[in-house]
Amino acid sequence: MSYLFFSFEGPEGAGKTTIVHMLANYLTEQHVDVIATREPGGIDIAEQIRSVILHPSNERMDARTEALLYAAARRQHLVEKVIPALKNGKVVLCDRFIDSSLAYQGVARGLGIDEILAINTFAIEGWMPTLTIYFDIDPTLGLARIRENDLREVNRLDLEEIAFHERVRNGYMMLLDRFPKRIKKVDAAQPIAKVFEDVQALIEPFLRK
Amino acid sequence: MSYLFFSFEGPEGAGKTTIVHMLANYLTEQHVDVIATREPGGIDIAEQIRSVILHPSNERMDARTEALLYAAARRQHLVEKVIPALKNGKVVLCDRFIDSSLAYQGVARGLGIDEILAINTFAIEGWMPTLTIYFDIDPTLGLARIRENDLREVNRLDLEEIAFHERVRNGYMMLLDRFPKRIKKVDAAQPIAKVFEDVQALIEPFLRK
Repeated sequence: MSYLFFSFEGPEGAGKTTIVHMLANYLTEQHVDVIATREPGGIDIAEQIRSVILHPSNERMDARTEALLYAAARRQHLVEKVIPALKNGKVVLCDRFIDSSLAYQGVARGLGIDEILAINTFAIEGWMPTLTIYFDIDPTLGLARIRENDLREVNRLDLEEIAFHERVRNGYMMLLDRFPKRIKKVDAAQPIAKVFEDVQALIEPFLRK
Repeated sequence: MSYLFFSFEGPEGAGKTTIVHMLANYLTEQHVDVIATREPGGIDIAEQIRSVILHPSNERMDARTEALLYAAARRQHLVEKVIPALKNGKVVLCDRFIDSSLAYQGVARGLGIDEILAINTFAIEGWMPTLTIYFDIDPTLGLARIRENDLREVNRLDLEEIAFHERVRNGYMMLLDRFPKRIKKVDAAQPIAKVFEDVQALIEPFLRK
């Protein structure tokens, strides 16, 4: 089955969420039937799983438990929201997908890309994104954006040290090497209008097909 | 690391839970340092995951989501309860472990033994049971025991048709073929005293080592 499923990846503060909204609006104006989503995406079961992951008393949670829970929430969001949309011919924009787990759990937390890929391969059952856009930015700049612009509350992940975010970035670099056809990088340190232009340029060829 | 980790498998109504209690008492009398447990085993995170799995509104839960959640709960129970006990030299008796997922999700729900093995291999990270005892019983007899003896409330799984339980049994038979060294079968249709004797005979050689 042919479908258009775009995922957007990168560290916090890279501007992913803003660009996904801009892109959804732009595509709607172009009369493209599009939905923008992110896990858990209002899916009740996925929200319940997410609340287990984020529960403050769960500092004892093992990294592998967490990785399995992310894969479970991903599965349910995919089955209830993404696949039905793709089957209805909609273009799906997804803010974070499999590569977040590969970069965060696989590389930054040290569980290994292949091991995280194995459980996520089980979860997504072949529904890989058509194209993944990686928003590359220096982690220090990304975190500064979150704090200074007060875009949202600083969360637990933000508070982990910069070293962790450097490992996440290295993880994405490894994924770019491993999946060069599927994943494309944009320079997210540019002004937002320029980042949006770059994203449009990457998406357009797929829409014209 | 050398350890003694025994798991007990089989359909509902096969008498597993009773035998595990009898065995724990017997081993304690023999001055063996033993704990009996079952997932989620009072582990808070695992209990939270289990409550997502069993939530009545979750009939929309996908079979793969469920399998990932069982693997997540297994991981946390293993890390917080089983591994520390084994590292302290305790004998661990576990009522259901990896083979339940292989038989129920892998075979009876049709997800495939290899696929369920992959996510559980990630979850258990090499901590396989030393020996697994499979309680074999005709599913009709097993369910009749639950209902007639009023051992506990009949739950959602009990109410699924006998055909499902036949598939579970076939699943365990496939696992006996696949892991003949690790998994041993006892005839659970026998009187409980005889089942206990058979279990003792299987366990004893490990304790004398």
